[in-house]
Amino acid sequence: MIAWKNMDSLASYRKLGEMKRVNLAAAMAGESGADRVKAYTVPMGAGMAFNYGARPVDDEILSALSEFAKEAQLTEKFAALYNGEVINTGEKRRVLHHLCRGQLGEDVVADGVNKREFYLGEQKKIADFANKVHSGEIANAAGEKFTTVCQIGIGGSDLGPRAIYLALENWAKVNGTLKMKAAFISNVDPDDAAGVLSNLDLVHSLFILVSKSGTTLETLTNESFVKDALKKAGLNPSKHMIAVTSETSPLAKSADYLAAFFMDDYIGGRFSSSSGVGGAVLSLAFGPDVFAKFLEGASEADKLAKNEKLTENPAMLDALIGVYERNILGYPTTAVLPYSQALSRFPAHLQQLDMESNGKSVNRFGEPVHYATGPVIFGEPGTNGQHSFYQLLHQGTDLIPLQFVGFRNSQMGTDVVIQGSTSQQKLCANVAAQIVAFACGKDDENLNKKFNGGRPSSIIIGDKLTPQAVGALLAHFENKVMFQGFAWNVNSFDQEGVQLGKILAKKVLAHDCDGALKVYSELLNI
Amino acid sequence: MIAWKNMDSLASYRKLGEMKRVNLAAAMAGESGADRVKAYTVPMGAGMAFNYGARPVDDEILSALSEFAKEAQLTEKFAALYNGEVINTGEKRRVLHHLCRGQLGEDVVADGVNKREFYLGEQKKIADFANKVHSGEIANAAGEKFTTVCQIGIGGSDLGPRAIYLALENWAKVNGTLKMKAAFISNVDPDDAAGVLSNLDLVHSLFILVSKSGTTLETLTNESFVKDALKKAGLNPSKHMIAVTSETSPLAKSADYLAAFFMDDYIGGRFSSSSGVGGAVLSLAFGPDVFAKFLEGASEADKLAKNEKLTENPAMLDALIGVYERNILGYPTTAVLPYSQALSRFPAHLQQLDMESNGKSVNRFGEPVHYATGPVIFGEPGTNGQHSFYQLLHQGTDLIPLQFVGFRNSQMGTDVVIQGSTSQQKLCANVAAQIVAFACGKDDENLNKKFNGGRPSSIIIGDKLTPQAVGALLAHFENKVMFQGFAWNVNSFDQEGVQLGKILAKKVLAHDCDGALKVYSELLNI
Repeated sequence: MIAWKNMDSLASYRKLGEMKRVNLAAAMAGESGADRVKAYTVPMGAGMAFNYGARPVDDEILSALSEFAKEAQLTEKFAALYNGEVINTGEKRRVLHHLCRGQLGEDVVADGVNKREFYLGEQKKIADFANKVHSGEIANAAGEKFTTVCQIGIGGSDLGPRAIYLALENWAKVNGTLKMKAAFISNVDPDDAAGVLSNLDLVHSLFILVSKSGTTLETLTNESFVKDALKKAGLNPSKHMIAVTSETSPLAKSADYLAAFFMDDYIGGRFSSSSGVGGAVLSLAFGPDVFAKFLEGASEADKLAKNEKLTENPAMLDALIGVYERNILGYPTTAVLPYSQALSRFPAHLQQLDMESNGKSVNRFGEPVHYATGPVIFGEPGTNGQHSFYQLLHQGTDLIPLQFVGFRNSQMGTDVVIQGSTSQQKLCANVAAQIVAFACGKDDENLNKKFNGGRPSSIIIGDKLTPQAVGALLAHFENKVMFQGFAWNVNSFDQEGVQLGKILAKKVLAHDCDGALKVYSELLNI
Repeated sequence: MIAWKNMDSLASYRKLGEMKRVNLAAAMAGESGADRVKAYTVPMGAGMAFNYGARPVDDEILSALSEFAKEAQLTEKFAALYNGEVINTGEKRRVLHHLCRGQLGEDVVADGVNKREFYLGEQKKIADFANKVHSGEIANAAGEKFTTVCQIGIGGSDLGPRAIYLALENWAKVNGTLKMKAAFISNVDPDDAAGVLSNLDLVHSLFILVSKSGTTLETLTNESFVKDALKKAGLNPSKHMIAVTSETSPLAKSADYLAAFFMDDYIGGRFSSSSGVGGAVLSLAFGPDVFAKFLEGASEADKLAKNEKLTENPAMLDALIGVYERNILGYPTTAVLPYSQALSRFPAHLQQLDMESNGKSVNRFGEPVHYATGPVIFGEPGTNGQHSFYQLLHQGTDLIPLQFVGFRNSQMGTDVVIQGSTSQQKLCANVAAQIVAFACGKDDENLNKKFNGGRPSSIIIGDKLTPQAVGALLAHFENKVMFQGFAWNVNSFDQEGVQLGKILAKKVLAHDCDGALKVYSELLNI
């Protein structure tokens, strides 16, 4: 029987606060540092490993975190989730995104439907559709193949799919699987749609409208924007557009779309990349086989997340070290730093995933919690970040835990040797160097050139950023965020904090506002 | 005579800590809230205004901040800077980026040269070169016009120019001044250069190599990468490449470049967008006249920053309210939220500008400071962020001050009416709504739907994102960061915190490392 308890009511959590802290700079020095880095590693799927040698833990703290995992019943809670319990209590919904990539537990039957079969069925429908588009069986009015796919969606219907597309665009190019270029329209700012459309060949473009409810105002507005542009170009919008939505949405059976593919309320926006929300655009861009490999990688990571043993469960381990850093050590921010240009928008996806899930002040019963929950997440690819904000990370007055990601090989394989090393070797040397620089620091008589060290980081190391690797990365962080939500006893699957702004924006547009809101709306000339 | 004192030694700062704090939710309610928003506004150049109605200050605190500005001698320090004193004491350099856009004080003569004349001379050389490229007088080997310009640079040679290019690309498109498309290569990850090059028409591309020292390893590596690609395409690299560098760099007089344009050590990377670092790529992309308008906007903002009166000096005001939030209220992070898709990379530029400048733990004399300095800066455009991380901003356990930016009109002018309003009106309604939602909150019996409010923000409101507006925005934040550095008594113009990583990366590449560093380098297969 699961007891949903606040973290500060757990004995194992209180014990963590009393334990001796790790002197990271000392622990990471010399041969003991080398041993530590060798020991503190765990496979995380798709041939990748999560290495936490430079996180501020030792065997004692890991053992205490392990106790905490047990007392907080993290494994049982995950099992309850994948077995279909109503974990999203606020919205009274199950949480089933894992079923898009594998069956982790019992069959989940909801509303008379086996949900794994439902999600697989939609995947199959999407794959068939994508194959027909690629073969030219589904084509434009002139019978010409579609060459570009453009997703219209916002939030979870944009950030994850966009980050994954960018992660694999160059990989697909060199592997001959870039079937269609993809573009994305998200912002209600009319310059977003206008700018994207000005770069598209409309005649050969297929649009995907993504909205679960079919009522997201930004997305419907951008749909109209695109339809206007298609009509002005003499094209029939309904022959250039498909929908990804829920079966109950107004879009589901509309003649406005070439086809509609379905998701349901059990897959939240920020967890929807492995559903049709990501599946349609990625299957069209790269082919269904590539999307299937992405799901395989995610499934591998999901299976690892079931492991009860903390040190063999990278997502749970990452989650609990994060809780330790956030709540015991008091660090308010976490940086995500992929040493891979292809992952340029992955931090933006994680920002939504993490901050929207765990940026809460009440527990799952609506009672205030008295500890910090989700941190601010930000990041940019390395080595770019090194020439930007790393100054503060190294020598600023706050400590900021870092999550590095690195790959032994580049995606495109083109490289150049300068000063005796390839670009890829330089890239890898830099990420290795940064971990040690942050952890160990360096003394100097001139304090301006001194590095205190003691700044924690972990690194996910893979062989190459393949579809499987992207899937495993995505699932790792989804599961990490889920475990942290369990630990903090918050509901990671709702987002009531976004409602008030929507309500007030409607009041402004209806000119039904007063006070400060009216003044701002006048200043903005609405 | 200027006294460079630590902030905590100033009586006016200590007084701030003892003052009654503002109840923002109460202050922003009803008619008093409306009055406050009307009163707390100041012009910031290029027709824009900085509105701080929703920041946690009142007349008493503003008056105390004004005292603080005087005691900290902010105006005198700025004057010392623009009159050419050696403000970057660590590197023994003047700080002269303002001279690229106007003469704020006395003539600055250094190394026998009037620096304003030198910067203007380089601007003129760049303008002439750009005009010749646009006219076809300077062309490729086949006598065809160059159509694309690609900047090779990292950090300050990338983030600012890239953000500004993106900010004006669509504006230029509809105004008929998009002379050349621009691309950017920055990361040492070989997939960055390979990916960008795979989208370029090399035959008609002109590359700009940007490195002040001429020794930045990432940039030289990417230069070689590009030269290889040009050679493989049967092109002569020296006919496709120009350099922006210092006169003393190895690139300055090389036959490898069609032309070289100069900057000097008195313009730091993150402050170099108004020098040739931004000037070359922006003049080529948009024409020299557009770049001149950008400089005009920056100059306007610079002049406002000279005003001794705090409430008439938007950069100083923004800076000191930020210090109040950081040091008295204890907020560790600031979000930058432009409601303009064109400003999508502006937060990334500000991240470098702010975090690299003020992420320091020692004062300008190399002594430790005992107060927090620069905060973490992050952000994404609205309304996208609303569907992403705003949940945490509204209901998370930490308070995060917000800097909104909004414009009454779109850049491209194409729009659509849905549910009675245009996209631009929806965009503006959303930013107005968010400010009030954050400040005022909303009560609810269900605490999960309750918003505490009291979350501070400011907004910069402009008519349209024009070149002048971009210039004023850039200069506003540069000057804000400078004033904060003065207040914290740090040197905002060096970046010693990036050195250790470079040294260790070299050791890895030379296989001259041991301990943890050696293990990481083996794991990464270097």
